[in-house]
Amino acid sequence: MRFVGEPHHDGSALYVSSREPALGSRVTLWLRAPRAAGITGVHVRTVCDGEPRYTEARVDESRTGARVGGYGADDVWWHAEVTAVNPVTPYRFLLHTGRGQFWLTAAGPVAHDVTDAGDFRLVCHQAPPSWMSDAIVYQIFPDRFERSGPMPDLPDWALPRDWDRDPVIPSGPGTAQQFYGGDLDGITRRLDHIQGLGADTVYLTPIFPARSNHRYDAASFEHVDPLLGGDEALHRLAGALHARGMRLLGDITTNHCGDAHEWFTAAVSDVNALEREMFYFDPHTGDYESWWGVKSLPKLNWGSELVRSSMRAVLKKWLGPLDGWRVDVANMTGRLGRDDHNHEVAAMLREQLGAQAAFIAEHNHDASHDLDRDGWHGTMNYGGFTRPVWAWLRGPELDLPHFLGVPGGVPERDGLDTVATFRAFASHMSWRSLTHSWQLLDSHDSPRIRTVTGSRERHLLALGLQATLPGTPMVFAGSEFGLTGINGEHSRTPMPWNRPHDQDLDTLAAYRDLLGLRRAEPALRHGGLRWLHADADCLVFARETYEESLLVCVRRAPGPALSMGAQAQGVYNAPDGDVIPGDGPSLSVWRITR
Amino acid sequence: MRFVGEPHHDGSALYVSSREPALGSRVTLWLRAPRAAGITGVHVRTVCDGEPRYTEARVDESRTGARVGGYGADDVWWHAEVTAVNPVTPYRFLLHTGRGQFWLTAAGPVAHDVTDAGDFRLVCHQAPPSWMSDAIVYQIFPDRFERSGPMPDLPDWALPRDWDRDPVIPSGPGTAQQFYGGDLDGITRRLDHIQGLGADTVYLTPIFPARSNHRYDAASFEHVDPLLGGDEALHRLAGALHARGMRLLGDITTNHCGDAHEWFTAAVSDVNALEREMFYFDPHTGDYESWWGVKSLPKLNWGSELVRSSMRAVLKKWLGPLDGWRVDVANMTGRLGRDDHNHEVAAMLREQLGAQAAFIAEHNHDASHDLDRDGWHGTMNYGGFTRPVWAWLRGPELDLPHFLGVPGGVPERDGLDTVATFRAFASHMSWRSLTHSWQLLDSHDSPRIRTVTGSRERHLLALGLQATLPGTPMVFAGSEFGLTGINGEHSRTPMPWNRPHDQDLDTLAAYRDLLGLRRAEPALRHGGLRWLHADADCLVFARETYEESLLVCVRRAPGPALSMGAQAQGVYNAPDGDVIPGDGPSLSVWRITR
Repeated sequence: MRFVGEPHHDGSALYVSSREPALGSRVTLWLRAPRAAGITGVHVRTVCDGEPRYTEARVDESRTGARVGGYGADDVWWHAEVTAVNPVTPYRFLLHTGRGQFWLTAAGPVAHDVTDAGDFRLVCHQAPPSWMSDAIVYQIFPDRFERSGPMPDLPDWALPRDWDRDPVIPSGPGTAQQFYGGDLDGITRRLDHIQGLGADTVYLTPIFPARSNHRYDAASFEHVDPLLGGDEALHRLAGALHARGMRLLGDITTNHCGDAHEWFTAAVSDVNALEREMFYFDPHTGDYESWWGVKSLPKLNWGSELVRSSMRAVLKKWLGPLDGWRVDVANMTGRLGRDDHNHEVAAMLREQLGAQAAFIAEHNHDASHDLDRDGWHGTMNYGGFTRPVWAWLRGPELDLPHFLGVPGGVPERDGLDTVATFRAFASHMSWRSLTHSWQLLDSHDSPRIRTVTGSRERHLLALGLQATLPGTPMVFAGSEFGLTGINGEHSRTPMPWNRPHDQDLDTLAAYRDLLGLRRAEPALRHGGLRWLHADADCLVFARETYEESLLVCVRRAPGPALSMGAQAQGVYNAPDGDVIPGDGPSLSVWRITR
Repeated sequence: MRFVGEPHHDGSALYVSSREPALGSRVTLWLRAPRAAGITGVHVRTVCDGEPRYTEARVDESRTGARVGGYGADDVWWHAEVTAVNPVTPYRFLLHTGRGQFWLTAAGPVAHDVTDAGDFRLVCHQAPPSWMSDAIVYQIFPDRFERSGPMPDLPDWALPRDWDRDPVIPSGPGTAQQFYGGDLDGITRRLDHIQGLGADTVYLTPIFPARSNHRYDAASFEHVDPLLGGDEALHRLAGALHARGMRLLGDITTNHCGDAHEWFTAAVSDVNALEREMFYFDPHTGDYESWWGVKSLPKLNWGSELVRSSMRAVLKKWLGPLDGWRVDVANMTGRLGRDDHNHEVAAMLREQLGAQAAFIAEHNHDASHDLDRDGWHGTMNYGGFTRPVWAWLRGPELDLPHFLGVPGGVPERDGLDTVATFRAFASHMSWRSLTHSWQLLDSHDSPRIRTVTGSRERHLLALGLQATLPGTPMVFAGSEFGLTGINGEHSRTPMPWNRPHDQDLDTLAAYRDLLGLRRAEPALRHGGLRWLHADADCLVFARETYEESLLVCVRRAPGPALSMGAQAQGVYNAPDGDVIPGDGPSLSVWRITR
């Protein structure tokens, strides 16, 4: 399959004059198409107040024939000016050719009619903070990153473990109680490592007091767990990060709290307590709703004004040390049976946070329905990134029972199905939501990418996709050393600072190189995305700004050499020239020169 | 392309134990797949409170190997019980095979991952009235159907026209003023004709007083236009219909009213009038928003409580004579810039109407986003039915400037793209919304199907699709005589009761036969839909209940004979046997016997 001949548009600056249009403002849209596509006319369809309007596009003579970004002298460029009539204005292109009409939506060109679900979108909601679009996120599970001193006195529930000698218990008794004693001052001590990777944003899983090592069962949102160093340690960490120009994100459970939380203990102890309305108690049995039936995680009722005001205060309180939140179980937040407060709650909380704070929704299958609603800035893109990458690059011997709960293990897919998945998910959200979503290879909730791929070679191909595709890379601490793990619990390995044999330094170097490349190249952070070629074992795409085109080729196996149709300069693991060599597995990046 | 080997599920009774599940109830789902598909396991994925759950399906031994509906002895049937957790619970199937995993959504089987947008849906909202799923709708534009007496005295704006001698003005001056004088008692007189076609539901375009022949610029919603016979004539018509067991639907403009409407005249005459809030007045200029900039149609502001209470009262007031409403410009209703009250308004009004009234949204491109929200029961399915049928069956010489505003004329499409469009639209709404939507070949807003197809032969193929596919057929009065029209205005031909040369009686007979067939065959009204074959010129599908399978073949040109894989009895234009003949153009229907 070749995509080279496709007409193209995406939401990047190369094709849209404003990524943050004001409501009612005029926006210029560009479309490029190879002359050979034989396009004789183009209309832009916008859906305004629910009704389609058609605007005729004209050839942009200033771009046509020019090598925009160094590539595509044979392309004809069309442009049209449209109005961003609604907070989200869907649009698509109607292409007229001698062979009939075609639509171009975010899902690609199509000869039949399709619904609006895959239309491009002009989004007028409050824009995410500008720092987010350059971010590279580093995820830390605090108990396992670094301990600043001796193990503190532990509460009864905790099972003390030796940092370097005791293996992580992957399941069964002790899983949530095993305690390695990592703390916030430990993190502060390791910022050179994090910054050296190219990351500029640290995301901490929960830091509030709880009765588990993961702390998703918060007993309070009012202060930092003393076992982590308390509020002061958080301020020290945040201060050190901010001094470096880096940022810090927290992790909040909007769906539930812990059963030791002050709200819940008040509610459960007195049927007349004000806090009673904050949860879903059965008036007859006194039983209560909880996350997935886990009774230690009582579900919050967002129909309650007290939940709303209390959580608003919590989210706001921590801004300062924190620069935003990752939201746990965002997908279920405010949803139960007939209730669905999700979009309203997300919008209310985001507004409360103001214009400079990040707000990212955990969602493990498909968040598209919840994005572009003035709430979540993006999602953890397990569905549209992690799963297709795993399915393409999984090791041949991999034997996992499921993918984040999807039965049947990790499927084996070829490159065509991989691109089809990328495109299917990307087309159901705005470019803004795609680029602000987190592209992750693994997390504290999944097996490690090294285990999934089964080799350093394939692991680094996955890293290459993470570093070069649109979306915000999120690195789970430890994967830069090539650590392994068969499930979320097992992946929460104490960092191998003192275990040189657990540090794959070649992998570490590749993280520094590839994340560094992303940091160095504006096109990798802000450029458009054009798929140029896909076959079973090879993906080729361009990341493009008006100024430059970077060409990325990822091969999981050797294949035929491919012509680039242009001269290029090698940028990463790539010879200068006009040919993509057939060697594989390989990851190569070029800059098109003419 | 052959779809025969596809695993299949749809929302019909053959595959879902309840089409009207109560919230929280258990529902059994069935899936059928040819043994040759090699399926080794099936999971059902439901999305519950925002999170996927997987339920393992098992082989249903009672159906497997049986000829369910007479067809498919080689099929393996799987079933699983799931919970309808939310008002709309999305679900899909995960199919395990020796060749990997596949998803089956309402868009068909797919080897890569897709978002939830095309998932099947369990819908727990209040069910539409049961009579709707058997309905065949006959649309009447009152000024052009039948006049019960001499032309009445006309208001100044009206341009009197002779019923049989004056051709309709298709555009320009006089278009909205030309007046033929059809009235409600005229309709009452012609009920034998309507019922004789097989229709049981009459839908009238607006009947309120106005200053145009189309009456979409209502001057009041309080009484029937005296030019149509007034309230009494409506009661006579409704009484006559109800006596026959037939039903009557009105047409309401929820988006706007006329500028002569009492609400608007009050609002415009006094900036302090209560009615001022019912519209969007610019506080500085005194200008107001209107439909598409047409100032005679001021747009209603659904942020106004007075609009809400007034329109609730209007919709309710006419129930009795009316059995429900078709809603004009439903797609724009409540939408303007930052405002979007559409879903909320639709749900509020539907609830107000109660359980026995129909509520159908006009929408000319893609209503899927507005359906399954406890509001509109269905849409006028121009996008998912009319346009693909036109594109497949349009005459070779057709030269129309656009399709309902889509530039570039009516595209020419082959059978594969036609099915692709049917499936794309059907997969973005529930089975309930699909079957309650109106499948129309034309309307008072479009060219006539006879003009589009250019021949009786192709017109009747289109009719065949309308009569046999899921969805409620809506016939625009006059098309049963083969009338023509190049645009909506031009199609509003006075009925040719007295013009025998304008009556194509072969076409009329085909309407009676094919709509009669739909009326006679439960599988055509309530059966599932399985696509069995598609190529450029031929579509084959089965409509199936547990008791029977009807096989429909539509050919726009001759082609190779096809094996049915079963013995069948001819039901319409079809020889008994096990072969679909290659003759074409043709429309044939069989009943599978074994």
